[in-house]
Amino acid sequence: MPLDPVLSRIDDDLPAALDRLMALLRIPSISTDPAFKSECDKAADWLVEDLASLGVNAEKRPTPGHPMVVGHVDGDGPHVLFYGHYDVQPVDPLELWDRDPFDPAIEETAKGKVIRGRGSSDDKGQLMTFVEACRTWKAEHGTLPCRITFFFEGEEESGSPSLIPFLKENADELKADIALICDTGLFESRVPSIMTQLRGLLGEEITLTGPDKDLHSGMFGGAAQNPIRVLTRVLGNLHDDDGRVQVPGFYDGVPELPAAIKEQWDALNFDHSGFLGDVSLSEPAGETGRTPLEMIWSRPTAEINGIIGGYTGDGFKTVLPSKASAKVSFRLVGQQDPHAIRDSFRAWVKGQLPPDVEVDFAPHGASPASQMETTHPAFEQARGALGAEWGHEAAFTGCGGSIPVAGYFKSILGMDSMLVGWGKDDDQIHSPNEKYDLESFHKGIRSWARILDAIA
Amino acid sequence: MPLDPVLSRIDDDLPAALDRLMALLRIPSISTDPAFKSECDKAADWLVEDLASLGVNAEKRPTPGHPMVVGHVDGDGPHVLFYGHYDVQPVDPLELWDRDPFDPAIEETAKGKVIRGRGSSDDKGQLMTFVEACRTWKAEHGTLPCRITFFFEGEEESGSPSLIPFLKENADELKADIALICDTGLFESRVPSIMTQLRGLLGEEITLTGPDKDLHSGMFGGAAQNPIRVLTRVLGNLHDDDGRVQVPGFYDGVPELPAAIKEQWDALNFDHSGFLGDVSLSEPAGETGRTPLEMIWSRPTAEINGIIGGYTGDGFKTVLPSKASAKVSFRLVGQQDPHAIRDSFRAWVKGQLPPDVEVDFAPHGASPASQMETTHPAFEQARGALGAEWGHEAAFTGCGGSIPVAGYFKSILGMDSMLVGWGKDDDQIHSPNEKYDLESFHKGIRSWARILDAIA
Repeated sequence: MPLDPVLSRIDDDLPAALDRLMALLRIPSISTDPAFKSECDKAADWLVEDLASLGVNAEKRPTPGHPMVVGHVDGDGPHVLFYGHYDVQPVDPLELWDRDPFDPAIEETAKGKVIRGRGSSDDKGQLMTFVEACRTWKAEHGTLPCRITFFFEGEEESGSPSLIPFLKENADELKADIALICDTGLFESRVPSIMTQLRGLLGEEITLTGPDKDLHSGMFGGAAQNPIRVLTRVLGNLHDDDGRVQVPGFYDGVPELPAAIKEQWDALNFDHSGFLGDVSLSEPAGETGRTPLEMIWSRPTAEINGIIGGYTGDGFKTVLPSKASAKVSFRLVGQQDPHAIRDSFRAWVKGQLPPDVEVDFAPHGASPASQMETTHPAFEQARGALGAEWGHEAAFTGCGGSIPVAGYFKSILGMDSMLVGWGKDDDQIHSPNEKYDLESFHKGIRSWARILDAIA
Repeated sequence: MPLDPVLSRIDDDLPAALDRLMALLRIPSISTDPAFKSECDKAADWLVEDLASLGVNAEKRPTPGHPMVVGHVDGDGPHVLFYGHYDVQPVDPLELWDRDPFDPAIEETAKGKVIRGRGSSDDKGQLMTFVEACRTWKAEHGTLPCRITFFFEGEEESGSPSLIPFLKENADELKADIALICDTGLFESRVPSIMTQLRGLLGEEITLTGPDKDLHSGMFGGAAQNPIRVLTRVLGNLHDDDGRVQVPGFYDGVPELPAAIKEQWDALNFDHSGFLGDVSLSEPAGETGRTPLEMIWSRPTAEINGIIGGYTGDGFKTVLPSKASAKVSFRLVGQQDPHAIRDSFRAWVKGQLPPDVEVDFAPHGASPASQMETTHPAFEQARGALGAEWGHEAAFTGCGGSIPVAGYFKSILGMDSMLVGWGKDDDQIHSPNEKYDLESFHKGIRSWARILDAIA
């Protein structure tokens, strides 16, 4: 089935595609706020109806939280699952918005036309690029290019509490040859990128207890254990002078970057000083001898995300507190085992405690890194398709954060994922005045048409 | 003038002395709460009137805060200044009191009779032991045993904001041969003690700033400076493995304990394990090779009294904060110079900061240690008098905390102080159900009569 007429029809149908996106954006499907529960339901209904108009057998599937939308359409060739999410972030602080976040509009800006409104980029706009590509394909050829399962979640912005059980209960139905996930962006807002490695995340909260009550440092200072002192001493040892994490075994399973990937990353000419300069920093703070891009995409970290103990109000109190605590998180790469690292971290902390100091640990998540199987033919097919659309060779990139769904697809369904998306760095997702470039939407639809064509 | 009839008369007059104390305790002179301003004034008026009844030329002296009470009475022999404070701590939480804190009463307890009420121990009860000793002396002999200046403060529990300017403005009037301060207690509730060394106090708040805004650890973790990491690393170096403070020059001016004092302290048979066991600790945490008593009374410390940074609420946020801060305090001894230590600490912190991390310091107080001139004859005179009253040799003791007024008397008026008092460890000062043992009040009055007799 020829691609060119599909691309032309996408160009012609853009105004109608925009109208449909606007209708979806008008539904305030904020998943984290119970007041918007029925709006989430409405967004799911809207998607079911829209998929049905493409000939997709779609339905809303209940969960203890907001519903999933699942749809199937048969076809020849490989079976792909497409994932996106229809829920959006809250809009506070509302006064910082220049318009009603749920009354979207096309605005002219110095950088071109943008679609302004909550969810325009994250993730309704992105999600609809795939749906519109399918719609046009169907309109042009009467059928879709391959077998497709549509899977839309309504809880991504509120921690995906129903996702794991839903995947487990519906594993057979949802497993495809590959998952396509559209919730990422262009590298530096211009280079099409396929995210092939995402860091995992392990969280630990540690609480140290010394004396059984807060003490006065005049009465006890010098003689009694001070848990803040112990906590700073322990956590001050977390890294060595070269920025390497000192928890034993931490680097087990950390791979060196393959030469081919390193070459691609070097070719991106990442603006390291601009990246740091944007937040008033001038030098990378991680492991000696690594570039910031390498640090963020391919190296594991240990960070202290919060610490508290003693008197923290105005003025001064000479208290020796009974307790002090910290939240520590680890970004993981390669084959690092979050559970082994948790055990090792706990033993390492305990090994440093003086007499009379007790420790409690509270776990907060433990997800391994995701490394995509770039040997799957879809990856090189997609690279070619993206290069043709954007006029710039596409890159396999990394991600410093986690996109847990990709990990769950792998661990629960045994399915690889390919993450591509059209977001730009200035889309202000999760912030006031979220936007999605018209270019992202238009070329995003065309990109999906090309990718589907290449895969099929 | 013979002492024995004075002591007998004190015993006989005890009920009347208690009635007077009760009247003073009924005035809710909480200095820190502006709602009680007129009550503080009332307590000052009550004292002026009471002193006048002893033939003391007393008056209420205004300050920008609560008034001072100053009274003079002439006499032969040395000139002593007596200091106490008439203001009291707030009473919250009120529901933990077994009676109205300002409706005092004599209660029978398993350990004997106590005077229950806010201020009974700290400091109205203590203050009145001296006044009652003077009253009885006057009643018996028609005159006081020596020249006395009475000086009562009304802002001790709220940081003494007016004290330094008042001492400076009235230096000539207030300077005496020695100050007697009654705001301390018996050692282990039984051994009469003269506090001869008090630690000084230096406070510093340090705030580190890394990136100019909070960052997401997925996006920046590993590449951007995290001020919490830097703060724990710096403060984790505050002590070496032997518990010694690592700030350069910190131990300049720290004396070893004189053998005679060490002998007295050893003779006290301090219950070190009970002291730590009361707060669920088992081992002293300070410098290796020092006893807890030595650590608290005679060794300097560095403590972290508060620390905060990043996300400290429930759950987890993978934030890299822009700022982290800590409150650090130093207890000082001997000739340690708080200003030199502040400078050295700041330089020591700055010397450990990586690029891109800025530090702000906020000072909180800088008072040197107070070392009393125990060669003044009043000290041995008082020791003898106290031994006679309490049936236990009196000891020269130390204090881990600060009693700033003694330092100000020395630095502003060039006057030495002698600190004696009759409080017990279970008086619950600053807490609900404050009490003062009837024994403390009765023997306290007798002790002052003996001390005045010995000094005069």
